[in-house]
Amino acid sequence: MYKAPVDDMKFALAHLVGIDDIASLPGMDMVSDDLVEAVLEEAGKVAGDIIAPLNHDGDVLGATRHDDGSVSLPDGFGAAWQALATGGWIGFEADPDHGGQGLPLCLGSVVSEMWNSANMSFALCHLLTQGAIDALEQVASPEQKATFLPNLISGEWSGTMNLTEPQAGTDLGALRTMATPNGDHYLIKGQKIYITYGQHDMSKNIIHLVLARTPDAPDGVKGISLFAVPKILVNDDGSLGEANDVFCVSIEKKLGIKASPTAVLQYGDNNGAVGYLIGEENKGLEYMFLMMNNARFAVGMQGVAISERAYQQAVHYAHDRVQGTPIAGNKGDSIIHHPDVLRMLTIMKAEIEAMRALMVVGGACLDKSHGDENAAFWHERASLLIPVIKGWMTERSQALTSDAVQIHGGMGFIEETGVAQHYRDARILPIYEGTTAIQANDLVFRKTLRDGGAAVTSLFADIDTDMNAIITTQNDSTMALAKQVKQAVDTGRQALDSLLARANNPRDAAAAGVDFIMLIGYLTGGWQMARAAAAASKAEAEQAGNPDFMKAKQVSATAYMAYSLPEVGKLASKMMAGPDALAKMDVNWL
Amino acid sequence: MYKAPVDDMKFALAHLVGIDDIASLPGMDMVSDDLVEAVLEEAGKVAGDIIAPLNHDGDVLGATRHDDGSVSLPDGFGAAWQALATGGWIGFEADPDHGGQGLPLCLGSVVSEMWNSANMSFALCHLLTQGAIDALEQVASPEQKATFLPNLISGEWSGTMNLTEPQAGTDLGALRTMATPNGDHYLIKGQKIYITYGQHDMSKNIIHLVLARTPDAPDGVKGISLFAVPKILVNDDGSLGEANDVFCVSIEKKLGIKASPTAVLQYGDNNGAVGYLIGEENKGLEYMFLMMNNARFAVGMQGVAISERAYQQAVHYAHDRVQGTPIAGNKGDSIIHHPDVLRMLTIMKAEIEAMRALMVVGGACLDKSHGDENAAFWHERASLLIPVIKGWMTERSQALTSDAVQIHGGMGFIEETGVAQHYRDARILPIYEGTTAIQANDLVFRKTLRDGGAAVTSLFADIDTDMNAIITTQNDSTMALAKQVKQAVDTGRQALDSLLARANNPRDAAAAGVDFIMLIGYLTGGWQMARAAAAASKAEAEQAGNPDFMKAKQVSATAYMAYSLPEVGKLASKMMAGPDALAKMDVNWL
Repeated sequence: MYKAPVDDMKFALAHLVGIDDIASLPGMDMVSDDLVEAVLEEAGKVAGDIIAPLNHDGDVLGATRHDDGSVSLPDGFGAAWQALATGGWIGFEADPDHGGQGLPLCLGSVVSEMWNSANMSFALCHLLTQGAIDALEQVASPEQKATFLPNLISGEWSGTMNLTEPQAGTDLGALRTMATPNGDHYLIKGQKIYITYGQHDMSKNIIHLVLARTPDAPDGVKGISLFAVPKILVNDDGSLGEANDVFCVSIEKKLGIKASPTAVLQYGDNNGAVGYLIGEENKGLEYMFLMMNNARFAVGMQGVAISERAYQQAVHYAHDRVQGTPIAGNKGDSIIHHPDVLRMLTIMKAEIEAMRALMVVGGACLDKSHGDENAAFWHERASLLIPVIKGWMTERSQALTSDAVQIHGGMGFIEETGVAQHYRDARILPIYEGTTAIQANDLVFRKTLRDGGAAVTSLFADIDTDMNAIITTQNDSTMALAKQVKQAVDTGRQALDSLLARANNPRDAAAAGVDFIMLIGYLTGGWQMARAAAAASKAEAEQAGNPDFMKAKQVSATAYMAYSLPEVGKLASKMMAGPDALAKMDVNWL
Repeated sequence: MYKAPVDDMKFALAHLVGIDDIASLPGMDMVSDDLVEAVLEEAGKVAGDIIAPLNHDGDVLGATRHDDGSVSLPDGFGAAWQALATGGWIGFEADPDHGGQGLPLCLGSVVSEMWNSANMSFALCHLLTQGAIDALEQVASPEQKATFLPNLISGEWSGTMNLTEPQAGTDLGALRTMATPNGDHYLIKGQKIYITYGQHDMSKNIIHLVLARTPDAPDGVKGISLFAVPKILVNDDGSLGEANDVFCVSIEKKLGIKASPTAVLQYGDNNGAVGYLIGEENKGLEYMFLMMNNARFAVGMQGVAISERAYQQAVHYAHDRVQGTPIAGNKGDSIIHHPDVLRMLTIMKAEIEAMRALMVVGGACLDKSHGDENAAFWHERASLLIPVIKGWMTERSQALTSDAVQIHGGMGFIEETGVAQHYRDARILPIYEGTTAIQANDLVFRKTLRDGGAAVTSLFADIDTDMNAIITTQNDSTMALAKQVKQAVDTGRQALDSLLARANNPRDAAAAGVDFIMLIGYLTGGWQMARAAAAASKAEAEQAGNPDFMKAKQVSATAYMAYSLPEVGKLASKMMAGPDALAKMDVNWL
């Protein structure tokens, strides 16, 4: 079903980030090769043996809402949650003071990739609970932390994020949910939609983090506050009390992630739902931004995860299925020997490895942004990479899961085969946590135009430096890869210049945004694949590691440069010519 | 819901093909501007008013198989079939001697586009019946034609194609279904899978065209014969008699086209199913090839159709939905004013128009291949374009329907919205009637390497000639478009050369095939869009036609050159470097 790609994860951590680098960060001295090995092996077992087998049935059965507003999940989900909880996986990166393991995000990212490859619907409960832990760690009062964090980190309770309302999706300024002060708490009233795991039966309580307005709040995004609203009220002694005034009105019938309940929650239809202000009034949006890097990073991780799962299923099928005789092959050879099947699988492998590499490197940037001596630099670098990781990886997961369907031929279209589920599940990724266009606006306006392109220019310079180092020290084939990346960097600079030239015409700049996200994605993927090939070449020469893995990594990198890097030139062309064409289009002609 | 794009269809027929050109073909003198107008308006009404409203419910309810092997379709499907039948639409292109209308395929293609935009699940019954009519017209005996064709053309009966068996999908040589001679007929025994409309309740009888082997047939594809196997036996007086020995064992649960029953049919479990040999023994595969151009053309048409339907839904939503204030726009403006939404819709519009143009031009090639004085040339040109029309248009329909989902944001992922259905429905198109890789093999080996690239070179020369004509006679902006296409042709020549250079290494040539399909697709799409822009520019100058339509067409073409034509260069790069990278990949590393 699913076998965690432990070797590639270890390679990325060891050769593209460096275990020692991570261990030298404050509070991270427990990180070592042995710890990484032990963590990945154990997580791989939980993901492969316990969580992955629930994925297909979860899709068929889905989550079920009952008339009393309760929601039940498919068999086995509760036990799998317990396995995550007792293994200490839920608070993997959380503060040890509240029961977390305090491990780095670069390691946590590949562990989370496993949960999401195994079962994205299931893993979303983990992802949302992590988000709630992150928010409370950053903003809650010591008393609130003591109440909520240990229970969330232990998995006794789970968490949600309540942002969207029917009229307020991307535009949070339009939200209307009200929070009226009432003694030591507030009474919340309003409707929230698209609440992932907003109601379910895996945990004993659910802590809803809700954006709402207080009565005198200013209009728009400056009048939004953050509240913790427990599904079941917590008594002073920490025990669970009465049900709060929050009701699950319905759950959505969706294209994918069907076992993940997406709830419409009605707050305060009776007396008002009891909610506790987190942080200060009117700072809700600011707090959202504090969490945003980690949340968007996590969705990018899901893009890698679902692609990996689909890839594994396609490889398995292609090794087994016999259909016709491959060109210049032998009768009875399986379809993996057909050139076009090999082409699709090779592109999948190469791009998944590139995405995983960028994810791990991006995760390390976030780790270094807390405590490294260059914390400010790493924060800037992470902030630049996050919209790319979210946008590029989730967009690519559409094509990669589609290729997995294609490799199955007619069988791919039959739901029983299971591969179509990955394709359907993946489709949410470029939408939630900010659509690709929203990521593009972030990259273009906040991360590029605001500093006149300085952060992007610095990234390009670092890529060049890495490539120059490879060119001077490596063998011919690795050198060729680095030269291709350097050419792509030059193209990237032209694209950047064209974007900077549009700074005074923000509509045109925005129109080039999604292409810019994709360009930086393919380019940084190439950067990491060239680095990976160089490291693999070195390891092969030194007879370190598995020689087949090291050879395969170099071929992956070669395939990436042949098939994926040419996208950079095409995207630069689109960025340059596209916005001018759009400016001529009258919306009434559409 | 759905409004047939009659203006664009008329434009393509009038300006890219020429009504007079078609009317000058043998037996086509009834074709005129007035006839085209009348046909498109009437078909548009049937598609929009009767068929389209059944689409979403059809998806929700699906086809239902009952224990007795019968299959019922959602409410309204039977009445819609009657509307097609009584309107004379089923035999639109069929021989008037058997009740058909004998109209040209270039006109029929846009009519069929309407049925498929309106409801692809429903329209498949029409498409398969057309295929059966086509096969019988080409190969059946006069008596068989008299028995089957009038009933199929009138819609009293419907037709199917039975090729696939569990072990024999792409590889028809592996099929095992047996046909044993028994007096004036054969007894058929075996199992066929993936039979579209293999069982249903819309027509009074179903004529299954079945590939099977006779007892002494040679092995492989040279031992396959074609049989007509009626669901209900036909008495000598033409009335319906007893049920034949064919049973619908199950229907598939699929990703999309859920109202289209995909049957597993068991033949001959009791006494053997009565089947009639069509044509000669052992010529089944040859007959399949005779039908293949039309069948693959039809699936390419479905790619246009489903993209158009998704586009219309996205445009409608984008005009209505308000979310945030567009950059440099007004508060309350709908999301169609957001630059990235405008970008996606503009690309959709431009590519759909390019695909429709290539479809109509390709259909005219097929029309001219029957009876034009240059019939042999037009047959060659059609045969070259068919794998491109099938491969490129169905692949693009994946991305275009996906963009329609994206424009809906979170709503796009909710099934109730309906746009996800188009995305799911579209996913079968690059698979059935030969996967994209099969189309690529056809283009590379039969249509390119076999004649040393002569047909492709001739196509390129014709594109150049058309572009030169535009450059010498047109205004600056249209001239610029033609120059861009000429550059892309040059790139296409390099790609062709690289393919010809791989002629002695067929694995490498095959590995470049899908990229070559896509390259020729984007390039020929650009060819047609430049021609369209030139015609629109001329019409605008002469104040002919709707000036807004003519302006919009030129902007579409500009957008196509900015956003779609750059794919040509990227695909050429992949064709050149990709196969060498793949040659280094060991399948055990995947």
